[in-house]
Amino acid sequence: MQTTVPNFLRQRACLSPTDPAVFIGEQTISFSELDREVQKWAAFLYGTGIRRQMSVAVCMHNSLQLVQIIFALQYIGAVTVFINTRLTESEKLYQLGDSEVKFFLVSDESLAVFSECFVTWILPSEPDVLASDFDLSWLQMEFEMHGVATIMYTSGTTGKPKGVMQTYGNHYHSAIHSLLHMGYSPEDRWLIQLPIFHVSGYSTLMKSVVYGMPIVLPIHGQMEHILDEIQKKKVTLLSWVAKNLQDVFQMQAVHKLTNIRGILLGGGPVPTTILKECHKERLPIYLSYGMTETASQIVTLGGSDVYAKIGSVGKSLFLNQVRIDNQEEPFEVGEILVKGPTVMKGYLNQAEETNRRMTADGYFRTGDMGYFDADGFLYIVDRRNDLIISGGENIYPAEIEAKMMELGIFQEVAVVGMSDAVWGAVPAVFYVPKQPFPYCELDIHNMLKKSLSTYKLPKKYIMLSELPRNALGKIQKIALQNQLKD
Amino acid sequence: MQTTVPNFLRQRACLSPTDPAVFIGEQTISFSELDREVQKWAAFLYGTGIRRQMSVAVCMHNSLQLVQIIFALQYIGAVTVFINTRLTESEKLYQLGDSEVKFFLVSDESLAVFSECFVTWILPSEPDVLASDFDLSWLQMEFEMHGVATIMYTSGTTGKPKGVMQTYGNHYHSAIHSLLHMGYSPEDRWLIQLPIFHVSGYSTLMKSVVYGMPIVLPIHGQMEHILDEIQKKKVTLLSWVAKNLQDVFQMQAVHKLTNIRGILLGGGPVPTTILKECHKERLPIYLSYGMTETASQIVTLGGSDVYAKIGSVGKSLFLNQVRIDNQEEPFEVGEILVKGPTVMKGYLNQAEETNRRMTADGYFRTGDMGYFDADGFLYIVDRRNDLIISGGENIYPAEIEAKMMELGIFQEVAVVGMSDAVWGAVPAVFYVPKQPFPYCELDIHNMLKKSLSTYKLPKKYIMLSELPRNALGKIQKIALQNQLKD
Repeated sequence: MQTTVPNFLRQRACLSPTDPAVFIGEQTISFSELDREVQKWAAFLYGTGIRRQMSVAVCMHNSLQLVQIIFALQYIGAVTVFINTRLTESEKLYQLGDSEVKFFLVSDESLAVFSECFVTWILPSEPDVLASDFDLSWLQMEFEMHGVATIMYTSGTTGKPKGVMQTYGNHYHSAIHSLLHMGYSPEDRWLIQLPIFHVSGYSTLMKSVVYGMPIVLPIHGQMEHILDEIQKKKVTLLSWVAKNLQDVFQMQAVHKLTNIRGILLGGGPVPTTILKECHKERLPIYLSYGMTETASQIVTLGGSDVYAKIGSVGKSLFLNQVRIDNQEEPFEVGEILVKGPTVMKGYLNQAEETNRRMTADGYFRTGDMGYFDADGFLYIVDRRNDLIISGGENIYPAEIEAKMMELGIFQEVAVVGMSDAVWGAVPAVFYVPKQPFPYCELDIHNMLKKSLSTYKLPKKYIMLSELPRNALGKIQKIALQNQLKD
Repeated sequence: MQTTVPNFLRQRACLSPTDPAVFIGEQTISFSELDREVQKWAAFLYGTGIRRQMSVAVCMHNSLQLVQIIFALQYIGAVTVFINTRLTESEKLYQLGDSEVKFFLVSDESLAVFSECFVTWILPSEPDVLASDFDLSWLQMEFEMHGVATIMYTSGTTGKPKGVMQTYGNHYHSAIHSLLHMGYSPEDRWLIQLPIFHVSGYSTLMKSVVYGMPIVLPIHGQMEHILDEIQKKKVTLLSWVAKNLQDVFQMQAVHKLTNIRGILLGGGPVPTTILKECHKERLPIYLSYGMTETASQIVTLGGSDVYAKIGSVGKSLFLNQVRIDNQEEPFEVGEILVKGPTVMKGYLNQAEETNRRMTADGYFRTGDMGYFDADGFLYIVDRRNDLIISGGENIYPAEIEAKMMELGIFQEVAVVGMSDAVWGAVPAVFYVPKQPFPYCELDIHNMLKKSLSTYKLPKKYIMLSELPRNALGKIQKIALQNQLKD
């Protein structure tokens, strides 16, 4: 079976040239118009020295330009490394160094960092190319399904961010899987509110070219604007996290979602209170379970099952297989293992860690714990170790703990998730100070701000004389969590 | 990217156990019921000695039993060799020998042939298994996308039938391609009228398990019954050849198709008169171009394009690429080359012929001639060499010519297609007799009947004193075709 396939955007522009690809502001951009603009950006980027197989980092907020840059890099055949816009300078530098990028593309100076190891480009608003530059013989008209398209960083339990290598095939199969579960009609329009540098946003771009479906790009992320766009642009599909729904409920604006035929909810567990409200309002939600390593959702729950199976994340998407490690019977809890064409190629430069996470028969160890019920529906008991999912962003306690210990003022620290009405969860820290300890909470906070993104900063600091440990000397995080609840 | 995927039927039965899989007569069979019955057949076939990787031939008319046998062989991991029910004994023996089958499964004695090389099994109507036989540890719960699922024979220009090896990936991608073009809704039901031993029928079975879509299996092929079934079972989708539409028009029964949202037309060119009638009746037809070697359609035309681009077969399906050999400009005619994940693995035991048909950059040479218009729509100028497509069946002149020469009574013969109002085309033969020649037309016809299926028998015999040849000595078939028209 051949695994060389046509460039997705190019093929879509050939198949449905006049169909709308992007709605943004007052503009409607067809697939052939998008393709033309993208080829100009490709020529511009090629002109700056970007070449096939190079790793090129992109740090940009959602925008039409970001969409164009992503497809332009695909045309060149470069590997796109996505850098979260919320990272601190040192976090960015770590990921840029680890992925050995040659170029770092940003849309404005506030997102830039500089180094001798790569060229930082603050992109112009328009690609500055002459018609004469248009020798496009180097345009990649084909993709290799096994070839790496994107690298997205995820922190993991060690606290050291790991580059997840996602292939064109991963993204294609993810788009098809979603289609098989949620269907597709020619009236569909999918609004992208979540960051495109996350797989949740990026996957919608891929759906757009694979299905021939227009995306709606809001000008900014304020919920009033989003709801207006949903109504004005006749949006039918959304990818959201629970926080977005909560905002809508608080604004009492559910009536603005009447056109919506599907809300794909990802980014961590959805509180039962929100599920109940969705049920009351008859919102067509699809719960999903997935991660960067699986190029978005691998398990989904939709239709009436959402309310019949409260607490479940559903069944696997068509070509995926899900298994509970070492458990055969329903209700037996174990690590969730997954296998399928959306599972990543591996962690960049971390063959050992990649191997550690793969079983001999090709399953990926998610690190999450769960079980199946008697009908084959999956339930998540505990997220990856002690991962905190805060408004759709993953926060790894180990990363915060490492940064705190680097300050040299603590004997020991332990970070746990604290439930939060707005964000789902936020980090809280328990610490044992080194004596003397002349610092107040604000001092610690300010020191940490230099090395941690705002969303990762602990929202609560609790001083202890010692941390609770079990017989094996392991910190008992559950005891700390219970203490938080009291 | 992982290419090991779950057994399609098994996965579908897990994901949508209670959804309908098959409507037949008064019966509705759910995916889990189908799966259970198929596992019984698998146990039965395993009991007879069928094992993984074995080639097993099947010669059966469309029936629920055929559907069950196909999925049962997938569960065992055997390769299914499809034998056209209309073949003569010697044609069957050739294909059974060429594919080195160990078992030949037929539903009744009339379809059976016997040989020392394989075991012929006339299947019972029910799988005769005891509950105690159910050690199913050998059931194949996974498919390898690159693994051969089916072998279907096609004659080709040499007249020697070639076994086309189709993989699980070929069939999966074919189902997905069709979905991307025709869409899918939970109300869809696809009626299978064309033979399942052809890729046109088989591909619908694959769509059924991949989408979770029910198929409607008519009890027999009479158009009155088919139309009743379409109405009674609320059929929305059909795969037909032009002849089927013509029958409906003749019966003045178009009103019985009001529920239909898509008619996929394959099996050769659709006469313009039929297209015009479809337009008048606003029938939602999808023209398609494909072949056994591409696991059904690779190019399709639907929607308003059908009538805007009369004569075209459309644009390629999403992951396919189509090219005209050595031509870059629109309207330049050349051989049609295709590339994509639905292109077969190769011809069985014919590495040389397989290589001859593949270009260095992975395109398959269809042998058909065609061109693109300025909008990128494909037009077929001439089918594979002088292939005759008669009511959806491929007839290769070379095969008929070879059988005629074997009789030893002709100096030379040439078979060409003759247009026919009912079948689209039928074979006509021009012959130069050896003297003396004491045979009448009926004598020749009766002699040929022993070695050629009825549908391949020439419908017209014309005696000449010599065949027209060009300067290179090649028979000028076009001159013969012109003579037929006069």
